[in-house]
Amino acid sequence: MADTKLAPPARYDDLKALFINCTLKRSPEPSHTDTLMDVNRAIMKSQGVSVESVRLVDHQIAFGVQPDMTEQGWDRDDWPKIWKKVEAADILVIGTPLWLGEESSVARVLIERLYAHSGQRQDNGQFVFYGKTGGCVITGNEDGVKHAAMTTHFALSHIGYTIPPQADVGWIGEVGPGLSYGDEDDSGAPAGFDNAFTQRNATIMSWNLLHTARMLKDQGGFPAFGNQNDERLSKQQLGHPFWSPDS
Amino acid sequence: MADTKLAPPARYDDLKALFINCTLKRSPEPSHTDTLMDVNRAIMKSQGVSVESVRLVDHQIAFGVQPDMTEQGWDRDDWPKIWKKVEAADILVIGTPLWLGEESSVARVLIERLYAHSGQRQDNGQFVFYGKTGGCVITGNEDGVKHAAMTTHFALSHIGYTIPPQADVGWIGEVGPGLSYGDEDDSGAPAGFDNAFTQRNATIMSWNLLHTARMLKDQGGFPAFGNQNDERLSKQQLGHPFWSPDS
Amino acid sequence: MADTKLAPPARYDDLKALFINCTLKRSPEPSHTDTLMDVNRAIMKSQGVSVESVRLVDHQIAFGVQPDMTEQGWDRDDWPKIWKKVEAADILVIGTPLWLGEESSVARVLIERLYAHSGQRQDNGQFVFYGKTGGCVITGNEDGVKHAAMTTHFALSHIGYTIPPQADVGWIGEVGPGLSYGDEDDSGAPAGFDNAFTQRNATIMSWNLLHTARMLKDQGGFPAFGNQNDERLSKQQLGHPFWSPDS
Amino acid sequence: MADTKLAPPARYDDLKALFINCTLKRSPEPSHTDTLMDVNRAIMKSQGVSVESVRLVDHQIAFGVQPDMTEQGWDRDDWPKIWKKVEAADILVIGTPLWLGEESSVARVLIERLYAHSGQRQDNGQFVFYGKTGGCVITGNEDGVKHAAMTTHFALSHIGYTIPPQADVGWIGEVGPGLSYGDEDDSGAPAGFDNAFTQRNATIMSWNLLHTARMLKDQGGFPAFGNQNDERLSKQQLGHPFWSPDS
Repeated sequence: MADTKLAPPARYDDLKALFINCTLKRSPEPSHTDTLMDVNRAIMKSQGVSVESVRLVDHQIAFGVQPDMTEQGWDRDDWPKIWKKVEAADILVIGTPLWLGEESSVARVLIERLYAHSGQRQDNGQFVFYGKTGGCVITGNEDGVKHAAMTTHFALSHIGYTIPPQADVGWIGEVGPGLSYGDEDDSGAPAGFDNAFTQRNATIMSWNLLHTARMLKDQGGFPAFGNQNDERLSKQQLGHPFWSPDS
Repeated sequence: MADTKLAPPARYDDLKALFINCTLKRSPEPSHTDTLMDVNRAIMKSQGVSVESVRLVDHQIAFGVQPDMTEQGWDRDDWPKIWKKVEAADILVIGTPLWLGEESSVARVLIERLYAHSGQRQDNGQFVFYGKTGGCVITGNEDGVKHAAMTTHFALSHIGYTIPPQADVGWIGEVGPGLSYGDEDDSGAPAGFDNAFTQRNATIMSWNLLHTARMLKDQGGFPAFGNQNDERLSKQQLGHPFWSPDS
Repeated sequence: MADTKLAPPARYDDLKALFINCTLKRSPEPSHTDTLMDVNRAIMKSQGVSVESVRLVDHQIAFGVQPDMTEQGWDRDDWPKIWKKVEAADILVIGTPLWLGEESSVARVLIERLYAHSGQRQDNGQFVFYGKTGGCVITGNEDGVKHAAMTTHFALSHIGYTIPPQADVGWIGEVGPGLSYGDEDDSGAPAGFDNAFTQRNATIMSWNLLHTARMLKDQGGFPAFGNQNDERLSKQQLGHPFWSPDS
Repeated sequence: MADTKLAPPARYDDLKALFINCTLKRSPEPSHTDTLMDVNRAIMKSQGVSVESVRLVDHQIAFGVQPDMTEQGWDRDDWPKIWKKVEAADILVIGTPLWLGEESSVARVLIERLYAHSGQRQDNGQFVFYGKTGGCVITGNEDGVKHAAMTTHFALSHIGYTIPPQADVGWIGEVGPGLSYGDEDDSGAPAGFDNAFTQRNATIMSWNLLHTARMLKDQGGFPAFGNQNDERLSKQQLGHPFWSPDS
């Protein structure tokens, strides 16, 4: 293999990454998902990326699918301040524990609130999430990493995020009750730390998010043509056989 | 909105797209999924993309998770010749009908056979699917577009494809038995052709695949660092707090 | 067909049914899911079943997987009073809207809190949910009925509920934005009310829940052998080739 | 706990169980899924149940959603002979390996072919699957038991099977490549055989299928009212507020 790959192909210190942990446990209770996200954070920080973290359950997020639910009658909604961080971040990493093989309820609150902004547009007509990239970190003691990743990535992609190759990482032990990621085993070693599959995936995922964010930022965002629903465009310009945005 | 977006930002006539239709119906029986994929094909062809199409059920694909199942005792396996097309294509679009809310069995055969190549590497150490992009086209008369898209996109992403924003399109009618995409309604109009949501998504998806393929091709593939499991790389180089590929 | 089926085969007026609506909207805002659950409620009430309804988002349910989260440091948790209703009910119907093809965050809160009781046992050693039956009601304007039903039924089954045949009902319109169940169309007719598929399924589901609850109640619960993890049972008694609960 | 539960509450030797293994491997290649299904089979046989097994990939099953695809132009279709076994069985157990977190393509072929019979009716108007019960057995080396169980149980339930509590069993090891169920570990012990969670669930599942089949058989099938779409029934008889089968 050529030597060129022994160093990062670019700089990433202008990038911002936001980690939202959707554990059900409030601070300061330790979160296994947080422990695994520490790997992603360390890799990104090693490249000078600005990393910010939010534990969503520590905030009072209203239920609903509007950007600010206080405008819908809720007394309090901490989402708008979290949204500012999402908006500013080039990279979003969603962390979630598994319950009955699925992402947590808090993760679904996050997805619903992100979705609430799918009505908003950038100046170029694209959804506000275009030009961003995302991935997920999943922990449990048993089963469901792929299913929760499917759901999370689909939601991100559906609202405008670009999903890099292999953008998920997880750790689960043998089926049934048992240790969660980072719990000490009989020998005092933290579960999953020596799992090459998990650590390699965490590495690949972190770098692929960096590469994708780099590409998108260098391009000035995701290319803006065909994806803005611009009513001035004819079907000929778009190449559609029979439909145009103004029809 | 600026005028710059009224024309495509690049040329795409060096790109190759492969459409694999996973309908359960053999040629020449009409396929609703094919009818919807016609929209994606037309858009890509309008930009000079080389488009090839395969109806998988017309071929005898062995069950299994090896690249060539004749080496595992099967008398016949048409997959290796399809694989050559997958390998050559910058863009892969998987089409599938819905049965009980899921992608077809033929779609799962395709995913299993793609997965069979996840043991292969490019010269730079990446999975062979790195540098490619993909999406999906889904039809049914009832329900399941998002679920089937989740599964399909996750599989593609997991083996190395980059998933653009909004890379799925589907059409289903009101819940319950009814017309499928392109079936004539009482007035003789083809179902779904006038559904702005579907036609817009087909347009967005097609363009986002083009943009992503363009970006990746211009970069010489997906950037190769951190994602090749290169044993010469130390944890310091990768930024991992405690793990390296040679551990 | 024999005439015997023209009347219900039993009485059901000793049964209790609980409907938990997991809409994101608080009372008194109308809920489409509620409108569809009205059909199930009417059928059950026609047989004298005691029907109770809860809109979960009207209550302050803590996040977590313990029966009472005030014991885990939360100031308030309304779940224990809801739990009493779940415990008393022979039939549980979970209603949920669809967001991005999935059940709502509130539905996942419900599932997590139900799961919290999977550590509790009946006197006969079974999980506390054994002997109960359940189903789900799903509304959206677009897609995901089957996927949300899969998740909901699996959760119920996994903790001890018996799932009757065809125990789900849903309504979605043609893919894309549009009316939700019960919204008035241009002619003033409520969407979905004339959908035979939906109304028939609501009928079948309601009756199958009644039949299953009847069977289970008449048996004194779900038969208690092999499912209680009783350490006095040998592998010979259980028929297991090599494992017994005391191993 | 009362002594009554130390013996089975009934006899089961008039029951028939069919195990369909959806492994991708043809006989005589060993199947991990088969090894786990051996536990269920042993428990059922210990009670005198007639047990039959089919490895679906050993047969030539056509793709399609009709009962006999030779009537749709396929030269050969072994499904009709398998169907006879399904029709005769009180209990159906579907076994599947996991690939990319999902059931196998062969499992989806099975589901599609079962679904093909959802247009058929019993004399009492019910779907032909009413009165039967089913469950699933899932193996892999990594992840996806719950997701595959959701899909499989939903399909069974949707066509008429009753799903008992906890009707799934699976084994997966720690995330990443590794042993599959029954593979010998370094000490020569078969993986998963000593996993109490898996062996207990196999036991519970087997017994719950027996109990449910017993209940249904003793009742002469699933009670036939409200679930047969009988056009002679009025909305008053069914309790529906505004719809009847003849509307």
